[in-house]
Amino acid sequence: MWAALGPVGRMARGGYRRFAWTGADAELRAWFREQAEARGLRYEVDRNGNQWAWHGDPARGDAVVTGSHLDSVPDGGAFDGPLGVVSAFAALDLLRERGVAGRRPLGVVGFAEEEGARFGVACLGSRLTCGLLAPDRARRLTDADGVPLAAALERAGLDPDALGPDPERLARIGAFVELHIEQGRALAGLDRAVGVGSAIWPHGRWRFDFGGEANHAGTTRVEDRRDPMLTYAHTVLAARKRARLAGALATFGKVTTRPNAVNAVPERVTGWLDSRAPDAATLEALVADIERSAAERGGRDGVTVEVTRESHTPGVEFAPGLRDGIAARLGGAPVLPTGAGHDAGILAAAVPTAMLYVRNPTGVSHAPGEHADTDDCLAGVTALADVLEGLVCR
Amino acid sequence: MWAALGPVGRMARGGYRRFAWTGADAELRAWFREQAEARGLRYEVDRNGNQWAWHGDPARGDAVVTGSHLDSVPDGGAFDGPLGVVSAFAALDLLRERGVAGRRPLGVVGFAEEEGARFGVACLGSRLTCGLLAPDRARRLTDADGVPLAAALERAGLDPDALGPDPERLARIGAFVELHIEQGRALAGLDRAVGVGSAIWPHGRWRFDFGGEANHAGTTRVEDRRDPMLTYAHTVLAARKRARLAGALATFGKVTTRPNAVNAVPERVTGWLDSRAPDAATLEALVADIERSAAERGGRDGVTVEVTRESHTPGVEFAPGLRDGIAARLGGAPVLPTGAGHDAGILAAAVPTAMLYVRNPTGVSHAPGEHADTDDCLAGVTALADVLEGLVCR
Repeated sequence: MWAALGPVGRMARGGYRRFAWTGADAELRAWFREQAEARGLRYEVDRNGNQWAWHGDPARGDAVVTGSHLDSVPDGGAFDGPLGVVSAFAALDLLRERGVAGRRPLGVVGFAEEEGARFGVACLGSRLTCGLLAPDRARRLTDADGVPLAAALERAGLDPDALGPDPERLARIGAFVELHIEQGRALAGLDRAVGVGSAIWPHGRWRFDFGGEANHAGTTRVEDRRDPMLTYAHTVLAARKRARLAGALATFGKVTTRPNAVNAVPERVTGWLDSRAPDAATLEALVADIERSAAERGGRDGVTVEVTRESHTPGVEFAPGLRDGIAARLGGAPVLPTGAGHDAGILAAAVPTAMLYVRNPTGVSHAPGEHADTDDCLAGVTALADVLEGLVCR
Repeated sequence: MWAALGPVGRMARGGYRRFAWTGADAELRAWFREQAEARGLRYEVDRNGNQWAWHGDPARGDAVVTGSHLDSVPDGGAFDGPLGVVSAFAALDLLRERGVAGRRPLGVVGFAEEEGARFGVACLGSRLTCGLLAPDRARRLTDADGVPLAAALERAGLDPDALGPDPERLARIGAFVELHIEQGRALAGLDRAVGVGSAIWPHGRWRFDFGGEANHAGTTRVEDRRDPMLTYAHTVLAARKRARLAGALATFGKVTTRPNAVNAVPERVTGWLDSRAPDAATLEALVADIERSAAERGGRDGVTVEVTRESHTPGVEFAPGLRDGIAARLGGAPVLPTGAGHDAGILAAAVPTAMLYVRNPTGVSHAPGEHADTDDCLAGVTALADVLEGLVCR
């Protein structure tokens, strides 16, 4: 299975660009359907474009579902998303080999646009399903070329008017387990191949608009300048320092400037802050602290600072009973929090949800260097099969 | 004349985009030709695409030439360039009104691609004419869409194979005077409408490539990161501080980052430094100092720093006799240095060259807010006519 996915959306430099509802995504979705049909699973696409493959009749209402997503960030790695879907099909194969005949229906899911790399909203498919994103707003989301989601869905043969909450589908699910490559080095430090998720940190994105005055870089005296690049630079360093002191994370990974000319003091610099913390109060205090520091420096630079919260995801605590049962079944697997958002974090509000992590020796994530050893991936499949077996036979 | 140029290449936000060899540029060039022909001046385009309008026979070899350029930076102002060309034609009109019948031929010139906004090399037309840029290199320059200069010239009906040094044309010129809007506030501080150029500071552009490791912004521990945005931010602040201490200028106005995703620690940040100083030794020491500071911080961030000098223009001292004669003729006009490059700075190496500056009350330059009062523009025309009269009658 892994070999078939390898070339899809792969770029010259080794990273992946698998954006939702593009040609690469269509190949991945065709692959999902083939895997489902090859196993005699019932294939369906829901109103929000998520893909499902069923063993047994999910109308029973207590289905055990596993899966993840197939799309990627720009220049992403091979594992983030696909490892969870490939492992789901492989775990079903293993259950069949073991002759497990569970009581509950089993499902594999591939959620649409988890990364938000094309339309800017992460976990788009699962958010819509859980009623956490208004369908009208979703249809109007546009990609970098100005293509609305509604048009992209139509081109892919889907009906954009169908988007919306799907409580009946959620009511079928008795438990959801998502396997994912770890996006840090905690398991490497513990010398364990597989871990169990405890919680997802609250996180969000804030846009910082720094407004100054465009001017000639070669003639404008230092004291006559209102240079927003200086305020931006100060804010980048302040965010890092304050996040470290708070035991949290704060990153400026995206920046644009206008007019972006070598010989012009910029008129405007816009930087996006990604910040995450162990709890909501810490996150709120950290961002307020960064804002204060930016505004104070802006005052000295003659630069205006406007901060807009573009997205916010509250912290998630995974179902404690499910989590502890899984950890015990896996022989006391380590239980870890993460700063990364996942479809499992969205579903956790609606159904009992758990996560498994597979060791990532370098911790590299959202980049071509992302990697898990084959032995660890196989350990992940075995662990997922063990967990599913425990659930379907319960 | 000014009213006819107003709408050309004007953008919604009030700034101008008049890039060389585009549609807007073609309109401006047609305007130049009309102005020449309406006055009975002989119109020609030289091998490098510069436009000329002649009164009298330049083959005499001691012509007095004035002019500037018509192209603009992205979102530039209305005055930078066109004021010098419009004032040149207006000064010729004034000489005619005065009944001046000078001994020497008079020329108006419009140099091609002075800003380097499309093909990245400033003063492209004058540099080629003076043999300061190899024609092969020029032909291969590409714009942001990958269009080579050679193709752009062909589309505009010019022969790219003709590009090259033009010593015969330079030999016709006995003196060159360029009028330009001031790009600072020195004349405003002195309460004078017109000033005379003394020198152009040495200046250059350096590309700083900061290389780190792309990673997930939500999961990578602070101590596991190699974030080039931090090193960039440090360098921006260090450049400003060190330039101020050196009495020089250092600006980061352009930055790009990869992958430029909100939730990814960047793999690479590239920033462009524009730096200028009163003399070559100060400039060299300043840039070396900024490089050292960037490398030192890069060492702490685990980030590589590579610095490439992309362009360098030595300082220019305008012909002292010409300069002092002009200042005296204008009743002791103030004599000022500038940090900005000009076609006059290129020509100064080949022919006796001078500059006139017209007051800019706010000092804003390379931006829509660039402005000179009408009275000051008229004072500029009168001063230019006085200077030309003095030269052609000498």
